[in-house]
Amino acid sequence: MSAQSSQENKTKIGVLGASGYTGAELLRLLIGHPRAEIALLTAERRAGKAMAEVFPQFAPYKLPILTSIEGADWQKLALDVAFCALPHGTTQKVIADLLERAPRTKVVDLSADFRLADPVAYARWYGHEHAAPQLQKEAVYGLTEIYRPQIKAARLVANPGCYTTCAELALIPLLKANAIDPDEIVIDAKSGITGAGRAVREDMLFAELSEGFHAYGVGHHRHMAELDQEFSRAAGREVIVTFTPHLAPMNRGILSTIYARGAEATPAAPEDLHALLAKAYTNEPFVHVLPFRTLPQTRHVRGSNMTFIGVAPDRIAGRAIIVSALDNLAKGASGQAVQNMNVMLGFPETMGLEQVALFP
Amino acid sequence: MSAQSSQENKTKIGVLGASGYTGAELLRLLIGHPRAEIALLTAERRAGKAMAEVFPQFAPYKLPILTSIEGADWQKLALDVAFCALPHGTTQKVIADLLERAPRTKVVDLSADFRLADPVAYARWYGHEHAAPQLQKEAVYGLTEIYRPQIKAARLVANPGCYTTCAELALIPLLKANAIDPDEIVIDAKSGITGAGRAVREDMLFAELSEGFHAYGVGHHRHMAELDQEFSRAAGREVIVTFTPHLAPMNRGILSTIYARGAEATPAAPEDLHALLAKAYTNEPFVHVLPFRTLPQTRHVRGSNMTFIGVAPDRIAGRAIIVSALDNLAKGASGQAVQNMNVMLGFPETMGLEQVALFP
Amino acid sequence: MSAQSSQENKTKIGVLGASGYTGAELLRLLIGHPRAEIALLTAERRAGKAMAEVFPQFAPYKLPILTSIEGADWQKLALDVAFCALPHGTTQKVIADLLERAPRTKVVDLSADFRLADPVAYARWYGHEHAAPQLQKEAVYGLTEIYRPQIKAARLVANPGCYTTCAELALIPLLKANAIDPDEIVIDAKSGITGAGRAVREDMLFAELSEGFHAYGVGHHRHMAELDQEFSRAAGREVIVTFTPHLAPMNRGILSTIYARGAEATPAAPEDLHALLAKAYTNEPFVHVLPFRTLPQTRHVRGSNMTFIGVAPDRIAGRAIIVSALDNLAKGASGQAVQNMNVMLGFPETMGLEQVALFP
Amino acid sequence: MSAQSSQENKTKIGVLGASGYTGAELLRLLIGHPRAEIALLTAERRAGKAMAEVFPQFAPYKLPILTSIEGADWQKLALDVAFCALPHGTTQKVIADLLERAPRTKVVDLSADFRLADPVAYARWYGHEHAAPQLQKEAVYGLTEIYRPQIKAARLVANPGCYTTCAELALIPLLKANAIDPDEIVIDAKSGITGAGRAVREDMLFAELSEGFHAYGVGHHRHMAELDQEFSRAAGREVIVTFTPHLAPMNRGILSTIYARGAEATPAAPEDLHALLAKAYTNEPFVHVLPFRTLPQTRHVRGSNMTFIGVAPDRIAGRAIIVSALDNLAKGASGQAVQNMNVMLGFPETMGLEQVALFP
Repeated sequence: MSAQSSQENKTKIGVLGASGYTGAELLRLLIGHPRAEIALLTAERRAGKAMAEVFPQFAPYKLPILTSIEGADWQKLALDVAFCALPHGTTQKVIADLLERAPRTKVVDLSADFRLADPVAYARWYGHEHAAPQLQKEAVYGLTEIYRPQIKAARLVANPGCYTTCAELALIPLLKANAIDPDEIVIDAKSGITGAGRAVREDMLFAELSEGFHAYGVGHHRHMAELDQEFSRAAGREVIVTFTPHLAPMNRGILSTIYARGAEATPAAPEDLHALLAKAYTNEPFVHVLPFRTLPQTRHVRGSNMTFIGVAPDRIAGRAIIVSALDNLAKGASGQAVQNMNVMLGFPETMGLEQVALFP
Repeated sequence: MSAQSSQENKTKIGVLGASGYTGAELLRLLIGHPRAEIALLTAERRAGKAMAEVFPQFAPYKLPILTSIEGADWQKLALDVAFCALPHGTTQKVIADLLERAPRTKVVDLSADFRLADPVAYARWYGHEHAAPQLQKEAVYGLTEIYRPQIKAARLVANPGCYTTCAELALIPLLKANAIDPDEIVIDAKSGITGAGRAVREDMLFAELSEGFHAYGVGHHRHMAELDQEFSRAAGREVIVTFTPHLAPMNRGILSTIYARGAEATPAAPEDLHALLAKAYTNEPFVHVLPFRTLPQTRHVRGSNMTFIGVAPDRIAGRAIIVSALDNLAKGASGQAVQNMNVMLGFPETMGLEQVALFP
Repeated sequence: MSAQSSQENKTKIGVLGASGYTGAELLRLLIGHPRAEIALLTAERRAGKAMAEVFPQFAPYKLPILTSIEGADWQKLALDVAFCALPHGTTQKVIADLLERAPRTKVVDLSADFRLADPVAYARWYGHEHAAPQLQKEAVYGLTEIYRPQIKAARLVANPGCYTTCAELALIPLLKANAIDPDEIVIDAKSGITGAGRAVREDMLFAELSEGFHAYGVGHHRHMAELDQEFSRAAGREVIVTFTPHLAPMNRGILSTIYARGAEATPAAPEDLHALLAKAYTNEPFVHVLPFRTLPQTRHVRGSNMTFIGVAPDRIAGRAIIVSALDNLAKGASGQAVQNMNVMLGFPETMGLEQVALFP
Repeated sequence: MSAQSSQENKTKIGVLGASGYTGAELLRLLIGHPRAEIALLTAERRAGKAMAEVFPQFAPYKLPILTSIEGADWQKLALDVAFCALPHGTTQKVIADLLERAPRTKVVDLSADFRLADPVAYARWYGHEHAAPQLQKEAVYGLTEIYRPQIKAARLVANPGCYTTCAELALIPLLKANAIDPDEIVIDAKSGITGAGRAVREDMLFAELSEGFHAYGVGHHRHMAELDQEFSRAAGREVIVTFTPHLAPMNRGILSTIYARGAEATPAAPEDLHALLAKAYTNEPFVHVLPFRTLPQTRHVRGSNMTFIGVAPDRIAGRAIIVSALDNLAKGASGQAVQNMNVMLGFPETMGLEQVALFP
């Protein structure tokens, strides 16, 4: 099967870091994207191999051989868009180099390197100074539904984290409306295993993870920095939330169970919070607010770019339980990256992202 | 999200039995099919409900309310295509009635009702006479790659079973070429749980099936009748194979491990069998033959309409191990059904079926 | 393999409701219990069958045929102990009848029928008056580590729920010590699927539950009534907590992630909470407090009667995250039931319960 | 919880390689073994750590700190039994050294190093000469039910492989009785993931293995050498079988689906094969032959030392389908190792191995 039929009107795309899970997910989506031409696939340790050797599902498709970033001539490649799915740290150098040589290439970065706008916060959470502070300033936080106009004008978009996308879509409209108490937010998040990437570690083995459940990163997880930034922006004051990630024995999906207290000043019963969210997302193709008291399941968004959000009242008056669900590889990573590309290039925002969830 | 944008040039489609897994899978594919207009969804026990109540993944889509078949006015509905995903037995009556009232509707039946051409075989395997023998005669067996011309001309296509599609695609070209001994074939098949449908039975509960593996239907499974028919047709003589189905703790996927002995008369080393299969499927968009000695995994076809086939030599000279993998709900059921619709209506065969497998 | 070698010094045991998961788990533990003689197994719909037909793992063991409760002559049977693993509602009548005819039989009830001491609370949560109010008064709440002396003297023990055991063991010592704010407790609980029992329902099917995660019973779950009762007893004032149960795609295990704020009056930093719990459970064979900042995983208690508890500081000063894990069928149900039997009969408390967790 | 109460009459045991899955499983069983005193635990890369850091389920137990083999003074340790769960290759040197210094220690080796009696076969399958040919000659193949008298007298027992135990228990009695055609045997085997050990490899990651199924080692797997040896011994002539291993997305369990043709000379209908097996294992505590036509499931032996075997007729006259199931870590490795220790030391054979399967 040919991945592309006609090369006319095609957008030349490079995927840097194609051998990881977000790389494969980008490719899955881009192969079905009518305007995408996959021009470059890089993977350092697998350079020289075919994509099918690294991810056999691509065997039927004609795709470029995996190459090393070092050999890439950005100027000559003249990519329209580069998706960067590289490990944290290396990313900022690669992108700085790329944009220097090919300043008209647009970049969607899926790493955490450009998500924090504040250099001080960056240094505190990552333990070193940022290597490309100018780009850090330039980068736009890529939570599409919230920053659509800025993304439209951006050259460099910092695609948000999976946990953060899931929690932020549920909470930002409420914080903006001062509808909840910003000091009483607890986010209990559960993720599928792919959230940890394709890291070859003992604790990622099948037999270590199946038939069990656990919390990790308790009290300290880098996605907290992103949550702090975005929630504080939304509330117009400093917001620090309690956030605990967990791993569930499944491949894909994040469910965030969020405990919030309605603000005193505004009409903020659970029904009001639900109405606020429903209104905020009425016209959004990828955020769907379920009927009041109906809560989402991760399996019903698997493989799709959807976020499902539900609201239910707690039995304690004044408190609400908000649950949001998305596919960490899709809307939580590569799906939102393609969505951002669509916005940046003026394509219909849903192009290539219309797949219905795969259930069962 | 609207499932359909423009209704012009659309094919009016009904899905009978939309509340089961093959029904949901049909809908998943048809929502993304550029020519499909979903005009009717039936589900007896759920009639009156929205599809989102039965399968929440469809919440964002505008779809017809579920109705009962009894109330359907086939003449007035004037469906272009009816997919029939009803339980065995009821199907033949429903289709007979439908085609009597709306003779121009084309039907793809996903049940087993029309797969056996021989009324005697049907009665033996199903324990009763066929209720629509005329239609049984008319029906075309819908293994697309093998019966494409007949399907093109057909009004009623009997979509093959999941196990049978998987085994037949691997074996029919070899039997046609007299390349293997038809008396020495063992098919050891492993299926995901959705192969059993959405039946509410104790042995289908999560806790009964996770973390375990077992054989069932040993020595007697209705798919044997289909295998007998198709293998005998291909070989031009009676062929009866050993076939054992198993259930693996996963949702989707069938892997058939097939043990065969090369025929004596023809050049039939494992390499030859591989070459025969590779040649047979060179131009097929949905059957991909892997390099010799490379074997497929079900996860790499999950959610796609692909069948992957591999061939390896056994250590016993003259014997080959052929492994084929497909998604039982896609190419094993609803994907092939849509593929057949495309053939019947003259659409490009891959239309609506281009989704890359969802892995991981 | 004979389940019992010598019948001398044996305790005659009946398991009422042996065809469900807690029944099977009781049997698993009792077969290995040196003092247990299994004298009666009941299962209404399966009466007349062998246990191996209902749970094939028991095929190698000599066990009584399943019978109906109706035919049981309690006086003649003269059971030493009856474990009651029947559905809610029927239980209270069966036990009242049993104790009337065989007043010296000791009963451990695994249903919810006798857990609530307050008839008003019972009626409010269960929608009807209690059928055996005298026994309700007599029953002792069977959280062994907390009520050991009362259990020792009891004739009827109400075995706690799985969620409640998990949360109560983590919180009762803290509430008793006034170490946490009783008005700010959030319990986010995740359970394996067996927690729902062997109910044959569509939402319990493998394909509906694998590869996904969701919350249920949000804002209203009957275990809340138990939590209210026990937390209020421990704190000496009314305590109402936020509690949200979830289902994880695994068979066994409950993980409770508990968000608490240290009380102001007492030294109640997270370290102090940890020290309090460690001290409370120093000599307990089945509650193990992990080192500070080490958190438990459900897989490491699977199949054992252990509860693992960990404490970590939240990044928000003054707040702690307490995580407890147990096997819902073992310490969360049948294991604790056997532990209670041991206490009631004066056996060593760990007898028959020494199995190490099955991991991986 | 103390792993051992009294040290009198205890057998001093060392587990070499305690940080892998078979090591952990040995420990799980030995902690519950009334005669075992765990005196030594080795783990090269984890030397100096507590077992609870490597396998948290052991946190409640008092166990020796992990040490390196290099530092072990075998003479001074004077182990009664050493279980060797080391990687292939290193094993033979370690055991040779151990037995030289402590010739009265009995050894059960769980690696493949001493399973093949023929030095030529060893060199062919493993690519190098055996480093301890004398011991290779001395070693007894530890399939307990078949070699019990030899094991009783042995100093060094080569514990069989998991796949081989499963297939051999099903086939050896039939081959010995000349009841099946030795040239027409196909073994299609499916294993849980722990069969591959705790190797930190990309293809062993959770996300690579869940929700999928595949064959591996097709046409060449080292367990074939063991099968060849034992089947040839049983048949009294060379037997080479077709054997294909697969990985199923579960932790534990092997199911072997075996296709055999009844021999012509003997009464060898499927019923006869079943009767032969039932008779052969009548008094065996750990092999249970199910009623004719009833087939086993891996989940019903999980965590137990049982092998369940079933026989069903194929629909092709004269052919039988034999299915055997065991837990690859228990009867397939550590359980059989403890069983062999019991035989070697004259303990009751079931001591420490009486645990009922953990289902669900």
